[in-house]
Amino acid sequence: MCRFVLYLGPEITVSSLVTEPVNSLIHQSFHSHEGTEPLNGDGFGIAWYVPAISEEPALFKDITPAWNNLNLLNLARVTRSSCLLAHVRAASPGLPVIQLNCHPFVEGPFAFMHNGKVGGFPSLRRLLANRLSDSAFNTISGSTDSEYLFALFLDNFRRLNEENDGCAAMAEALAASITEVEQLKKEAGVDEPSTLNLAVTDGRGAAVSRYISRGVERANSLYLHTGTGYTCRAGHCLMEAAETGRGAVLIASEPLSEDEGWHAVPPNSMVITGRDLQVTTVSLDSR
Amino acid sequence: MCRFVLYLGPEITVSSLVTEPVNSLIHQSFHSHEGTEPLNGDGFGIAWYVPAISEEPALFKDITPAWNNLNLLNLARVTRSSCLLAHVRAASPGLPVIQLNCHPFVEGPFAFMHNGKVGGFPSLRRLLANRLSDSAFNTISGSTDSEYLFALFLDNFRRLNEENDGCAAMAEALAASITEVEQLKKEAGVDEPSTLNLAVTDGRGAAVSRYISRGVERANSLYLHTGTGYTCRAGHCLMEAAETGRGAVLIASEPLSEDEGWHAVPPNSMVITGRDLQVTTVSLDSR
Amino acid sequence: MCRFVLYLGPEITVSSLVTEPVNSLIHQSFHSHEGTEPLNGDGFGIAWYVPAISEEPALFKDITPAWNNLNLLNLARVTRSSCLLAHVRAASPGLPVIQLNCHPFVEGPFAFMHNGKVGGFPSLRRLLANRLSDSAFNTISGSTDSEYLFALFLDNFRRLNEENDGCAAMAEALAASITEVEQLKKEAGVDEPSTLNLAVTDGRGAAVSRYISRGVERANSLYLHTGTGYTCRAGHCLMEAAETGRGAVLIASEPLSEDEGWHAVPPNSMVITGRDLQVTTVSLDSR
Amino acid sequence: MCRFVLYLGPEITVSSLVTEPVNSLIHQSFHSHEGTEPLNGDGFGIAWYVPAISEEPALFKDITPAWNNLNLLNLARVTRSSCLLAHVRAASPGLPVIQLNCHPFVEGPFAFMHNGKVGGFPSLRRLLANRLSDSAFNTISGSTDSEYLFALFLDNFRRLNEENDGCAAMAEALAASITEVEQLKKEAGVDEPSTLNLAVTDGRGAAVSRYISRGVERANSLYLHTGTGYTCRAGHCLMEAAETGRGAVLIASEPLSEDEGWHAVPPNSMVITGRDLQVTTVSLDSR
Repeated sequence: MCRFVLYLGPEITVSSLVTEPVNSLIHQSFHSHEGTEPLNGDGFGIAWYVPAISEEPALFKDITPAWNNLNLLNLARVTRSSCLLAHVRAASPGLPVIQLNCHPFVEGPFAFMHNGKVGGFPSLRRLLANRLSDSAFNTISGSTDSEYLFALFLDNFRRLNEENDGCAAMAEALAASITEVEQLKKEAGVDEPSTLNLAVTDGRGAAVSRYISRGVERANSLYLHTGTGYTCRAGHCLMEAAETGRGAVLIASEPLSEDEGWHAVPPNSMVITGRDLQVTTVSLDSR
Repeated sequence: MCRFVLYLGPEITVSSLVTEPVNSLIHQSFHSHEGTEPLNGDGFGIAWYVPAISEEPALFKDITPAWNNLNLLNLARVTRSSCLLAHVRAASPGLPVIQLNCHPFVEGPFAFMHNGKVGGFPSLRRLLANRLSDSAFNTISGSTDSEYLFALFLDNFRRLNEENDGCAAMAEALAASITEVEQLKKEAGVDEPSTLNLAVTDGRGAAVSRYISRGVERANSLYLHTGTGYTCRAGHCLMEAAETGRGAVLIASEPLSEDEGWHAVPPNSMVITGRDLQVTTVSLDSR
Repeated sequence: MCRFVLYLGPEITVSSLVTEPVNSLIHQSFHSHEGTEPLNGDGFGIAWYVPAISEEPALFKDITPAWNNLNLLNLARVTRSSCLLAHVRAASPGLPVIQLNCHPFVEGPFAFMHNGKVGGFPSLRRLLANRLSDSAFNTISGSTDSEYLFALFLDNFRRLNEENDGCAAMAEALAASITEVEQLKKEAGVDEPSTLNLAVTDGRGAAVSRYISRGVERANSLYLHTGTGYTCRAGHCLMEAAETGRGAVLIASEPLSEDEGWHAVPPNSMVITGRDLQVTTVSLDSR
Repeated sequence: MCRFVLYLGPEITVSSLVTEPVNSLIHQSFHSHEGTEPLNGDGFGIAWYVPAISEEPALFKDITPAWNNLNLLNLARVTRSSCLLAHVRAASPGLPVIQLNCHPFVEGPFAFMHNGKVGGFPSLRRLLANRLSDSAFNTISGSTDSEYLFALFLDNFRRLNEENDGCAAMAEALAASITEVEQLKKEAGVDEPSTLNLAVTDGRGAAVSRYISRGVERANSLYLHTGTGYTCRAGHCLMEAAETGRGAVLIASEPLSEDEGWHAVPPNSMVITGRDLQVTTVSLDSR
């Protein structure tokens, strides 16, 4: 289990997601409310976009728990962006806690993160590798299912982007990657269910899935919160013009703050945020 | 809050304390039963004696949580000793998680660890520094109350050792250090209570206190378990000839295993293990 | 030996100091030209000011060598500021490489760094501690001479700031701290020379010393470079309107780039940069 | 470039290789004499066998430079073994410095390390992956050529071990892996030469290659030193009964000590140490 949050909208500080809200990502790192376990202390990462300098996101990851990382506190306090991602990790048993296995992963303009697991991944790792283009395969530095999923997404995006604008291609590539990995499990006779809460962004739009394999009861939690801006004052954080406004989007494993307007994303659906920061929710087939 | 364990007796592997028991120190790092909070993920340390090579203990500390440190798992599996200490840390708020603030602390033949806190330490730090000899002051590398307590112990030991054998001097110096720091609080008008579960060993004997300032209700937990040897087989750990036997001593913040014979150490007392591994429990005055 | 650089002027990216110049601070971390040894691989740190958010500088430090820290590369690429400090460390023998011993040190609005050493520091540590106010003493988290110097500076600044504007007080407090530590050595009968290349800033002005005790031959290197702005394009960095222009100031242990206009600061002098970014160089008495 | 050392013989402390000799592995980490560059500061690792407890080697790796790692110093001082490996790393440009990319690598009873590189590895990574069995492929946690070579070795060993005793199979599998990777380069049209100084051991015997692709001038350095035992006293280390004695074997990238009897291993050959600690040197075809 992991916990994540993605923000698109007017510039805010990283601290508005990571330290200030009552259920901030740092709070979730030691006491998450809706995870299958409360502890997410196996490393963390943040990514943020600075469009004036580069279309490639900046990345800060470390293997220590988020709650005691002084560098993270410093960065969170002074770093502002209109597109932010943050992730705290609970490592799968047996998987090493190394910086490169921490999320988000970045490649070109994309940042990607995952909460959940690919069912039966050890039996699928080789099959997944075989499907990847050389360039996607060579982006893989570690050994997690999440990094293989991102490589699959990169190949699907390249293929789909030729006939779509970038934002729709991003959403379609994410859905196609889910379909592909679930199809592969069937071919390989793998029964273990997958939980694929995946988030991908290019800094201007985003696609975030809440997915669980067919026949399984409980998808990992995911919430959507929209309005005109997310503000924190004296430890009190809220979305302004929640529900009615437009232009700021928060998608998070758990509500960060106690204000109204956090809605659970339905299982097996995908939240798409377009260039205009309009949000739509579409169904994903459960396989 | 922290959790610790000290072992003296026939050689055992570090894993017998750190990974194998059902409530191993690694288990306590993410889910302690009797701590004021369940999480002790702010670094860890182990110390062990190899008398054939040196009277100075070996030390391995890191700032990552014990539960995900591959080096710790490897060392625990192959390292054997007749005197072992292990500690998992929950940092006091505001204190940095750095390797040098992790326990145990070592100096010459001594290894030292602490569970609890010196009440009002920020007001006392300077006063404590003033009482220390230059050599004890210069051993301090970090900024925690625990390291100042150890420096105080070193001075007291030097003074008391002239007229006592080492093992009695160790116990008297520990008691004197507790008395001294509590006296200093009175002089400085500090009211905050101290919790001073302190363990010190020279590899052949040990003294471990369970102390709380007068008028305060609940001392941090501490248990004693004695017998002829502590063994782990297939994940089942027990003290052989518990209660009746002699020659192996476990003193731990919480029972590690489910076998009979773990006894709570009374508040405001000190467990002393002599060169012959005889155990006595003496009262400490609460101040 | 360590190497450092301080910049004041129009906003530039951290990479303009840390990665892009031919003799960037990262280059100096593995191959410094003018250090007594070429290697500065014992940790690093950067500090930068974001005045729109806070008068307190942001800080990023780590114990790995600067040359292989992916987080540093990412931050350097996207972080811009009008006041930047960066430091690479070669630890003194016997001193631990921990995050808190890395420079810069920060406290309130100040950032501070040191290249060199206080002669005979182990004999002076206690005497220095005794001179510090409680509040200055409590800022010390580690065990290096540099952190004690910074605490001394903080006390001197508080005293001097009452009758001076901040920027002059900063310079006077730095000079007074050098005088004080050298005086203390005399009183303690310490003969070992000190090398005190010290840099302090409040984000708007700065004072940087190049100091060596009397009778010693070679001060650590220090250079000054001024103009209207420091720019890097395609790996070629230069100070615009070097020597004639005004408004951008670089003070560095070694020239970063091959352009004209890097001048050695005379030994036993101090470069002061005022609020108007005017630079003056004053003498320091060698003691 | 990296530097390594492998020892087989009577029990010695890790410090006899890592800290005590005049050109100890820690010395080589900041100032190697025969490397193409003097600096090997991108992490380190040691592996050692404790046959009384397990046939699987213990492993300690970290990403900081060997020269400033306090845990390494402590372990080196008290850890003794009859089979020791130690490695200091200079990362290839672009490859991340993470714990899992540090050497040695271990799997089952084997420990493996590499000094050099597979020419054109980015073009070969996928082809190498395709040749591996699923079990060998799943052992790979990082992204280095060295880990792929080890996986190739594991497959070759399984195949060859059926008809050979373990020690001969180990040597044949190492030679076969070199042949295979060079053959693969030909098929892929890769011209870049490989430097494959590879060491593998099962704790009782070892095979170590000094290999360079055909037509290339300078193989990475490798030395052999044999006798009855390697001892360090007061910083002076030497092989007893060097050249004439038998029973202790040192194979190292550079001579560690200044005593007589260090012989350069000829390029394109392999040193094989049998169960009886007899040493033979055989030719490897350069391809």
